Amino acid sequence: MMNDLLAGVAAGPRPVKRGLYIADIVEMLEALTPSEAAAKLGRMADVRAVAALDRPEFSRAPEVLELLPFPRAVRLVSQMAEDRAADVLAAMDEDLAARFLAALAPDVRTSLSQLLAWPEDSAGGMMTTEFVAAPANATVGDVLRLIRTVERSRETVYSVFLVDKAGRLESTISLRRLIAAEPDDPALDLGRDREPVVVAPDTDREEVANLIRRHDLLALPVVDEQGCPIGIVTVDDVLDALVEEHTEDVQKFGGVEALDKPYLETGFFAMIRKRAGWLSVLFLSEMLTASAMQHFEDELARAVVLTLFIPLIMSSGGNSGSQATSLIIRALAVGQVRLRDWWRVALRELPAGMVLGGILGVVGFARIALWQKLGFYDYGEHWVLIATTVSAGLVGIVTFGSLAGSMLPFALQRLGFDPASASAPFVATLVDVTGLVIYFTIALAILSGTLL
Amino acid sequence: MMNDLLAGVAAGPRPVKRGLYIADIVEMLEALTPSEAAAKLGRMADVRAVAALDRPEFSRAPEVLELLPFPRAVRLVSQMAEDRAADVLAAMDEDLAARFLAALAPDVRTSLSQLLAWPEDSAGGMMTTEFVAAPANATVGDVLRLIRTVERSRETVYSVFLVDKAGRLESTISLRRLIAAEPDDPALDLGRDREPVVVAPDTDREEVANLIRRHDLLALPVVDEQGCPIGIVTVDDVLDALVEEHTEDVQKFGGVEALDKPYLETGFFAMIRKRAGWLSVLFLSEMLTASAMQHFEDELARAVVLTLFIPLIMSSGGNSGSQATSLIIRALAVGQVRLRDWWRVALRELPAGMVLGGILGVVGFARIALWQKLGFYDYGEHWVLIATTVSAGLVGIVTFGSLAGSMLPFALQRLGFDPASASAPFVATLVDVTGLVIYFTIALAILSGTLL
Repeated sequence: MMNDLLAGVAAGPRPVKRGLYIADIVEMLEALTPSEAAAKLGRMADVRAVAALDRPEFSRAPEVLELLPFPRAVRLVSQMAEDRAADVLAAMDEDLAARFLAALAPDVRTSLSQLLAWPEDSAGGMMTTEFVAAPANATVGDVLRLIRTVERSRETVYSVFLVDKAGRLESTISLRRLIAAEPDDPALDLGRDREPVVVAPDTDREEVANLIRRHDLLALPVVDEQGCPIGIVTVDDVLDALVEEHTEDVQKFGGVEALDKPYLETGFFAMIRKRAGWLSVLFLSEMLTASAMQHFEDELARAVVLTLFIPLIMSSGGNSGSQATSLIIRALAVGQVRLRDWWRVALRELPAGMVLGGILGVVGFARIALWQKLGFYDYGEHWVLIATTVSAGLVGIVTFGSLAGSMLPFALQRLGFDPASASAPFVATLVDVTGLVIYFTIALAILSGTLL
Repeated sequence: MMNDLLAGVAAGPRPVKRGLYIADIVEMLEALTPSEAAAKLGRMADVRAVAALDRPEFSRAPEVLELLPFPRAVRLVSQMAEDRAADVLAAMDEDLAARFLAALAPDVRTSLSQLLAWPEDSAGGMMTTEFVAAPANATVGDVLRLIRTVERSRETVYSVFLVDKAGRLESTISLRRLIAAEPDDPALDLGRDREPVVVAPDTDREEVANLIRRHDLLALPVVDEQGCPIGIVTVDDVLDALVEEHTEDVQKFGGVEALDKPYLETGFFAMIRKRAGWLSVLFLSEMLTASAMQHFEDELARAVVLTLFIPLIMSSGGNSGSQATSLIIRALAVGQVRLRDWWRVALRELPAGMVLGGILGVVGFARIALWQKLGFYDYGEHWVLIATTVSAGLVGIVTFGSLAGSMLPFALQRLGFDPASASAPFVATLVDVTGLVIYFTIALAILSGTLL
């Protein structure tokens, strides 16, 4: 998009190569207050202002457009890439967006209304309706002429669609195949030898990204129920979507609801809300640890030494669980593991947890023995039994942590949730309560008759 | 790449549209044992076998090539995209890779050796040396003719470079601008009005992805010290790199060293190694909690009731820390926050932590009061003081957790590490030890003279 516009300016004598890239201009505008940014944008030529507004990184575009004189703002919106224009209108106050729509030319209004109808993270919400379609019986020369007429306008030409008489997508052709072919060749011969890969407008953006990546596409056609193209999702939009998805996944894994805006631009109380929810839920669940401890209070009073290792043992369970969860979340996301593979994963995590727990158990035993022998701390006459309790507890808890952590994403997916909603704090909480019960049960088995 | 090859097969009469996409063939080959896959690939036509080998998802390509008759394998490698061929050779046993290199045509050998010299996750390791360069004084017609001659070969034509007499990159031109222009126009007029965005071959893949995304490029030129193009990184390689980076980041945040292979294909002991390292380091650090507890053992013995809330309080600190870390890791990764912004973040996290801790403190106080009044548990005559201790402890620990969690990624970046190496378990461990000290210090201040 931007290239067209810049190149449009550049037609004629070769311009001096200096000044800022559009990306730099956007960065500068983002650092200003909305009214300063509006003043700056107001002084730019249309092509440059539109190129800046077209960038998804320009998060203040809706506010800035609101501050510009209305006729100018409408002119700019009408020149923007349609997918981006729809996103900007969607971020505006509803009344204002309606005023913009009403002021736009009828064809632009129709396209934008269509785009606004789809959720932002669906193929319909990501697509642009600006594509090039030629009849299936066109020659290469016909298609090239068609591209020449539309290229000067604001089209995004990545590939060309050939459609049959009913408007159904027949084939897609890449620009480089067109260039290499003879003008009189039938364009249809340049298509791929498979049905074009297409998606429905309600397809989730993660699936769109997977298809584009899987088939190395520059643009993915979006078709309606009859198979007629209604738009294209381009690879640059997918790149942006992937990065956004990545951010959301990391935030969710950290136990935060995904932020809608960059960190420093999120209001203080909006941020508190995004964090307090999960933190409180986890806190309430974690209260079960206090109940579990109350249940064992006699044992605690008789053997205070057991409490010394509670944080150590609990955190090891949480850590091993968080490791397993992070591995499975990504394996599920990129399709290396399917829902039906859960038992294969369980059969791997069970021995893995036992080995990892065994390693920590040996280290833990050595630590207690060392402190006892070197006189750093006196665990009493039954120190060997205590060390055994701690070691056995570690094996049990790390095994449970690995198993629970790896099964949680499967359970979430099975229940229809995003497996990436499994967060490290969630796993840790899940493992903590059970971990305490495992620890005290082992302690009762090993120490009863001596300490307990 | 694939499209060229398929389209190459498809030239002439229009083929029947049926059978598998290359992505499906690769998936099928991946599910077979290497020797079965080699047998299957051995029966395919060269174009199809090469199209499959060209896919980065085909992780067994090196083993499969090893099992094919050597002359056939060499022929296939020589037809592969050079960036992918280099990756495959890099994954082979060194002697075998050397045998392949020796058997290839001299020009292919030279390109591949160049590519193999760069680390896999640098621009040099991601690029292909197959690009189209024309002299800066060429006309549009000249460039189109050049593309026609190379398009039939295995070139990846995304954009065309114009180079000066010394071979230095002067401008890049998109295919769609070429199609729209008149054949006699100077090609240079179609270039952008800014210096082309370029990278050095040792640029990190994350930076490459950021540039491609920032400037909406389909291909990014890689230039040597003199400014002469030596390759291009294409957007499809960047998509793959982003997804891989995403997986690594989630695994690191979960406290696992990034796996080199898909989860189910990673050997059992390789996986144990990737997990045991961090788990043991965390375990050893967490041992400090046992030391901290030993330090307060008199208080513990006198007020066992205090131990009941240790897991609850510790986990809340870890959870709030993990939230803050996940927010800052991504804000740093996408450039929303810079290293120099650390104090702005600290000034936000300090009050945020206090508010979040306050919320949990109120809930915690209510829980204790409720249990006491309803007779679920008797915390003794000093239950108000105990509840106050727990609440104050939560405020202190959640504030410390938010602050420590948000500052950790900055500290890592400042020390030259990837901020994404800050893992949830690492933050939790960091917060646990300090959290215990905070809790017991507050307990001493509030309860001394009564319980302590």
